[in-house]
Amino acid sequence: MQSIVNDIVNMNDKIKVGIVGGAGYTGGELLRILIHHPGVELAYVNSKSNAGNLVSDVHTDLLGDTNLLFSNEHSAKVDAVFMCVGHGDSKKFFDENPTFLANPALKIIDLSQDFRPETHGFTYGLPELKREAIKKSHRTANPGCFATAIQLGLLPLASQQLLKHDIHISATTGSTGAGQSLAATSHFTWRNNNLSVYKAFEHQHLKEINHSIVQLEAGFDQTINFVPLRGAFTRGILASVYTKCDLSLEQAVECYKSYYEAHPFTHVSAKNIDLKQVVNTNKCILHLEKHGDNLLIISIIDNLTKGASGQAVQNMNLMFGIEETAGLKLKPVGF
Amino acid sequence: MQSIVNDIVNMNDKIKVGIVGGAGYTGGELLRILIHHPGVELAYVNSKSNAGNLVSDVHTDLLGDTNLLFSNEHSAKVDAVFMCVGHGDSKKFFDENPTFLANPALKIIDLSQDFRPETHGFTYGLPELKREAIKKSHRTANPGCFATAIQLGLLPLASQQLLKHDIHISATTGSTGAGQSLAATSHFTWRNNNLSVYKAFEHQHLKEINHSIVQLEAGFDQTINFVPLRGAFTRGILASVYTKCDLSLEQAVECYKSYYEAHPFTHVSAKNIDLKQVVNTNKCILHLEKHGDNLLIISIIDNLTKGASGQAVQNMNLMFGIEETAGLKLKPVGF
Amino acid sequence: MQSIVNDIVNMNDKIKVGIVGGAGYTGGELLRILIHHPGVELAYVNSKSNAGNLVSDVHTDLLGDTNLLFSNEHSAKVDAVFMCVGHGDSKKFFDENPTFLANPALKIIDLSQDFRPETHGFTYGLPELKREAIKKSHRTANPGCFATAIQLGLLPLASQQLLKHDIHISATTGSTGAGQSLAATSHFTWRNNNLSVYKAFEHQHLKEINHSIVQLEAGFDQTINFVPLRGAFTRGILASVYTKCDLSLEQAVECYKSYYEAHPFTHVSAKNIDLKQVVNTNKCILHLEKHGDNLLIISIIDNLTKGASGQAVQNMNLMFGIEETAGLKLKPVGF
Amino acid sequence: MQSIVNDIVNMNDKIKVGIVGGAGYTGGELLRILIHHPGVELAYVNSKSNAGNLVSDVHTDLLGDTNLLFSNEHSAKVDAVFMCVGHGDSKKFFDENPTFLANPALKIIDLSQDFRPETHGFTYGLPELKREAIKKSHRTANPGCFATAIQLGLLPLASQQLLKHDIHISATTGSTGAGQSLAATSHFTWRNNNLSVYKAFEHQHLKEINHSIVQLEAGFDQTINFVPLRGAFTRGILASVYTKCDLSLEQAVECYKSYYEAHPFTHVSAKNIDLKQVVNTNKCILHLEKHGDNLLIISIIDNLTKGASGQAVQNMNLMFGIEETAGLKLKPVGF
Repeated sequence: MQSIVNDIVNMNDKIKVGIVGGAGYTGGELLRILIHHPGVELAYVNSKSNAGNLVSDVHTDLLGDTNLLFSNEHSAKVDAVFMCVGHGDSKKFFDENPTFLANPALKIIDLSQDFRPETHGFTYGLPELKREAIKKSHRTANPGCFATAIQLGLLPLASQQLLKHDIHISATTGSTGAGQSLAATSHFTWRNNNLSVYKAFEHQHLKEINHSIVQLEAGFDQTINFVPLRGAFTRGILASVYTKCDLSLEQAVECYKSYYEAHPFTHVSAKNIDLKQVVNTNKCILHLEKHGDNLLIISIIDNLTKGASGQAVQNMNLMFGIEETAGLKLKPVGF
Repeated sequence: MQSIVNDIVNMNDKIKVGIVGGAGYTGGELLRILIHHPGVELAYVNSKSNAGNLVSDVHTDLLGDTNLLFSNEHSAKVDAVFMCVGHGDSKKFFDENPTFLANPALKIIDLSQDFRPETHGFTYGLPELKREAIKKSHRTANPGCFATAIQLGLLPLASQQLLKHDIHISATTGSTGAGQSLAATSHFTWRNNNLSVYKAFEHQHLKEINHSIVQLEAGFDQTINFVPLRGAFTRGILASVYTKCDLSLEQAVECYKSYYEAHPFTHVSAKNIDLKQVVNTNKCILHLEKHGDNLLIISIIDNLTKGASGQAVQNMNLMFGIEETAGLKLKPVGF
Repeated sequence: MQSIVNDIVNMNDKIKVGIVGGAGYTGGELLRILIHHPGVELAYVNSKSNAGNLVSDVHTDLLGDTNLLFSNEHSAKVDAVFMCVGHGDSKKFFDENPTFLANPALKIIDLSQDFRPETHGFTYGLPELKREAIKKSHRTANPGCFATAIQLGLLPLASQQLLKHDIHISATTGSTGAGQSLAATSHFTWRNNNLSVYKAFEHQHLKEINHSIVQLEAGFDQTINFVPLRGAFTRGILASVYTKCDLSLEQAVECYKSYYEAHPFTHVSAKNIDLKQVVNTNKCILHLEKHGDNLLIISIIDNLTKGASGQAVQNMNLMFGIEETAGLKLKPVGF
Repeated sequence: MQSIVNDIVNMNDKIKVGIVGGAGYTGGELLRILIHHPGVELAYVNSKSNAGNLVSDVHTDLLGDTNLLFSNEHSAKVDAVFMCVGHGDSKKFFDENPTFLANPALKIIDLSQDFRPETHGFTYGLPELKREAIKKSHRTANPGCFATAIQLGLLPLASQQLLKHDIHISATTGSTGAGQSLAATSHFTWRNNNLSVYKAFEHQHLKEINHSIVQLEAGFDQTINFVPLRGAFTRGILASVYTKCDLSLEQAVECYKSYYEAHPFTHVSAKNIDLKQVVNTNKCILHLEKHGDNLLIISIIDNLTKGASGQAVQNMNLMFGIEETAGLKLKPVGF
């Protein structure tokens, strides 16, 4: 029983992975997951700003876990590359480095919003919507964090053509959703114990959400009213979503359970839920209530895992035909 | 210039005040305000559970500010009494102590919900709705905290008969809104960095809100959809409220500014707002946005001051004909 | 009783005050205090970066409290000027604007560290150490925040020549102590729920502390070991200080009570204390314990009020011969 | 490559584990670790108060990870039992259930303090001090959380007979250190943004610490001065420890690195550290500084993992001769 966690995959079998943009929040989160992923070998972690530095000098919680250095280089000659760069920078990178899109053997998982409209051969990487397509795809565009939490709250209804009324959403995100750049609204003194609305009715993720719903419910033309808020926590999104719906609570729960039955990360809770149930996991937990005509759906995810890097790894697993949960059975932080 | 803050009111002129239930959160907050109120003399601070103890042994931030003791006694022979007891306990107290309601010279400010339907001669104590009635009243029933934040976001529209569509509200409250009793959801380990929905569509304050709106807009029969949340902060409520409305943004802002022009604590901000702007003040700040047909109103208050004890003092000031802001020009905590 | 809070001081009597550097944390805090100070009239609030903007556009919690604008100008022709600029910038300002130090009628309260060694006619502005000197002074150098918390924990012993052993201090400060500039360690994502040591044994406030102790206990030559920490809160400092001491607990408490008897803001608590007792007040609360030979002194202040702007106003009050507590009877935030 | 994470250990090889007291914080944390441990099979999770309930109804973050129920039963017929009960209750349990200590084939890991003095055949379960003894032991008494953080900061010096002077410690713990029982000091309203000292100089872990040091440095008789604090975070301990020491910084770092070379969870950081580097991991990270004669050691752990349940699993791994890190390569929460 000596070596139960070592060598479980022949080294030759491991997926050789490159990361472009490894010094930011999603890059760091990806590293936290991949260094313990049993089927992955890290080929390089590219970062312009930190080339030559220890990964653990930037993501200091990885001290003792890895001796990797950030590299100035990158290469399309790996099995998979994760793009963890800012919106717009991903497209720009591929323009400047044409070998990436030119290599048919390279699988790409892009965490920016650049290819979410499914251009350039990219598949929208929401496994609960498009698992079979992702499995066959060489390129996935990872969904936005709000978009993930909200879609997972709506897809089962859409799949039954039941989104027949306006949808009302309020969702609060942790500070990591805004990235690590310094700003007045990322200052601890400002954000601690604070709460504020931003981009009301105009958040860019509304497009993705609509695009996905229409794939399941072709004629969908209701308004999605979405008020996003900045919360005083670092990780997580809690979305409360309601819409008029003819289903009884029991029918609705059955609809959701049935839709997510084969999906390992999305669960329906009979009891009311709270944000911290999913922090540091790749899960989405949903809770349903019926009040008069309104069906209320509460949806919680960790914006950095299921809302970004965890889902990216889930997509990689699917694209390579390994277990969907590989490397993603994460210990929740719980408190 | 030696004694600018002393003796500004002749001792004989001071309002003699009793507090029933002084050991809880609203009682403590009332004490924090009244001990520096230039027109008030504290006659007694009643608390069953803490009789004989120093007020500053329970409200430990008052150490050095007062040597008052909690008292087992209470009396209707004061100028004003504040009732800071639990819902239901206020009515019970008056039943058991008939001298209070029997004394026509006694002014009562009740912070429970027992008399908010304006029974027993109580006036609903929301100055922005009923200032003139409060001035003439001997008894006010102080509004609920959510009810205050939400009504202040809707009254100007109601006053113009403009609430013609369903109303959608999401509002997050600090932990002090739930009182000081210990519960799983008040445990630091649970609540820190957490967020959760409770009493969705069924919060008891909906009744008050409807009751007030109807007073201004007689035929109002729209649905108010209200999702309350528990936030990871101690003080404050931020409510986001939207409804379809024909007014342009400019017209709406004008409508709100005009409605609140004569009210010293409620302000309209042209810039977006955040919760901490009002913490430790008696203010309500509103910010309006127009998105398509929707008018979005963001409303922030401190649940313990404008949402409870501060508004109670505001009511007392009005009832005694002194300046509405006396004792309530509070230093914001800011951060 | 109509106008109990207005006009309590004849306008001609009010102290005309200028603020240089009004857009930072200490400037904002000073404004929060002075706009409700009954004996002060604000002549100007200077800010290079914000000239022409509303004060309430920067210190947004002051919306509704003031219509003041930041000004590009400043003048030595006021009764008092508060310097709220960075370390080094105060001296520079006076060099560039010689009319200030040249005006014998102008009283200056400087919040930087530039004049704490009591050069240029400045008195060290710690009222509990030098009240009589401050009263006679035209210029005070306001102490540092850590220096205030720690000195108030040591002065009574020094006054009795009882500091005969090494002193061991650990003190944790809120984020406002580091100012509003953006830095990795001021990012919410980093600082939330975090804790870290910085400048161990080398904090610049050690000089001030030594300098003050020696004034009371001439031969003092013990080592002060000081480990400062950054805490995950915005306001406040809690210092735990211990040293070997021959006094019994009773004698020590008596020594401290006696030393602070005539000082309105510093109190000794018989019960154990916690940081939030003093937040948003100008108080220092001390608690003493004796363990074996060690006397443990716990000292708490709000770094922005007693540790900065509140103490600055206290000094102003003393310098102008008005009540020491004028404008400083602040409602604690409590929670 | 299909089944890389399944069946990596033959089911017959798995360690059959029972948990007594599975509903508290350490029980929950143990479950979070063990359900993903590749070499463990959970035989029962005993809880008096929750028998019959789903584990995921109590530890709600485990929804979707396990369908286990709490059981009223327990049995000594397993390979290992973890005792996650309160101090005193462990000894009581073994008195009432004599089959446990009577079974020589049963390995016991006790998380209470009952057997830390190494009575009844228990070995003190600090691998960095007693790994070889633990490997041979059938019973380990898991160290206290403060004791773990502090000892790991001192053992290298003790191993070189270098603790020749008084030791000064200040350490701040998260709220989970106090367990899940409700108390005034565990109320969110009180603890949020707060800080307080407790049990100064008298914390019960001082005994353990002394006991361990003496094993390495026989004549050690210096005083350990320890001021514990309650911090406003849920997980983690940061201890700052200093003592006079003749080693240069380089020598000290060499001494620590050499001592921990063969230990997979304890690391020395050349850069300054902060608490969140270790949250949700089983690591201890140390940082050293030299200031004059003082050697400062900063030590951080997660009180629930390395300070409790993670170290318990580490001990189990050692006792069963499997890899020390099995099941403990945890994703840090990072933020």
